[in-house]
Amino acid sequence: MNKGISKAVIRRMPRYYRYLGELIENGVERISSNELSEMMQVTASQIRQDLNNFGGFGQQGYGYNVKFLYDEIGRILGLTEIHNVALFGVGNLGHAIANYVSFEKLPFKMIGLFDVDPKKKGIRVSEIPIMMLDEFEEFYKTNRVDIAVLTLPKDAAMPVAERLANLGVRAFWNFAHVDLVMPKGIVVENVHLSESLMQLSYNMTGR
Amino acid sequence: MNKGISKAVIRRMPRYYRYLGELIENGVERISSNELSEMMQVTASQIRQDLNNFGGFGQQGYGYNVKFLYDEIGRILGLTEIHNVALFGVGNLGHAIANYVSFEKLPFKMIGLFDVDPKKKGIRVSEIPIMMLDEFEEFYKTNRVDIAVLTLPKDAAMPVAERLANLGVRAFWNFAHVDLVMPKGIVVENVHLSESLMQLSYNMTGR
Repeated sequence: MNKGISKAVIRRMPRYYRYLGELIENGVERISSNELSEMMQVTASQIRQDLNNFGGFGQQGYGYNVKFLYDEIGRILGLTEIHNVALFGVGNLGHAIANYVSFEKLPFKMIGLFDVDPKKKGIRVSEIPIMMLDEFEEFYKTNRVDIAVLTLPKDAAMPVAERLANLGVRAFWNFAHVDLVMPKGIVVENVHLSESLMQLSYNMTGR
Repeated sequence: MNKGISKAVIRRMPRYYRYLGELIENGVERISSNELSEMMQVTASQIRQDLNNFGGFGQQGYGYNVKFLYDEIGRILGLTEIHNVALFGVGNLGHAIANYVSFEKLPFKMIGLFDVDPKKKGIRVSEIPIMMLDEFEEFYKTNRVDIAVLTLPKDAAMPVAERLANLGVRAFWNFAHVDLVMPKGIVVENVHLSESLMQLSYNMTGR
């Protein structure tokens, strides 16, 4: 895995991946950096610089091979293997995320939904019956869980994350309104919706 | 409004705002950059550099006045006035976001929910009855809408955004799986959940 690529470039990769995926859907086999530039509203030189990180996929007078580039970026993003996902906290957001993960054509597979509310037990979301949090330990013995999604209230997120980490879960996609502080070797991606909303509010001012 | 601050600093401001808000809740009146550094897992020198952008709020031997800094960052982020929000597409995600906006102690006020499914008409979410998309034009005549939230299917997002922009809506918080391309002067904040998930997947590889 090439880890010499800058963080900023990596942050932009999923967007390339998305656009290339759409091009494939539309039957496009190759594209020039200028065409990609127009589609993505990014300068062609930025695109060339970014994609040069992955070796000379672009050829003068030919452009990029869409499928090859898509696969290569997918490989770098770790999208060549299926990641099993379990979700904790099946409120509205949890419900939405569970559907989202199942719906997207990405190699993430929702395999378990957990909550603490006994009234939710057995209710199916995206065909998966909700289980109780206390059942997770048993579940985990026979199911590999690569990613835990936390769509939990703020105060519950950290204790649940610690419990899961102690069992061996190594990656967290956290929507709770708190920064998870986890030991080294555990990967956390925080989605702070309020920060995105504040960014919008900032951009609205003083125009 | 001070627009001389770098984008990277602005991106970090909501996080400061969140931590300072929690300190206020906990009755903390002042804090040193070292203490804040430990809380936020950011170096103290980064904090000093970031906060210096807002003038010398920190005083040697005193630290930062929490409330003052909180208010100042809030002012910069445009959080001193209430922003009226209308949401389009009341599925699970829309439902979650509507509750989220209403629940957060931020100056964003959900004032309208719109969908195209007649079965949803009149159903209340966070006490707001769902209206039909076609009713928006009439609604907009007597209600100021500062931000439109798009929790719509990908294909519906752009046409709805254009329709709203033509009526005068100037800011969009977009959750649809597409980059909105809007005329100059219109502010868009895209939340691409799949990109966050791919980032997580990338960070999981090769550790």
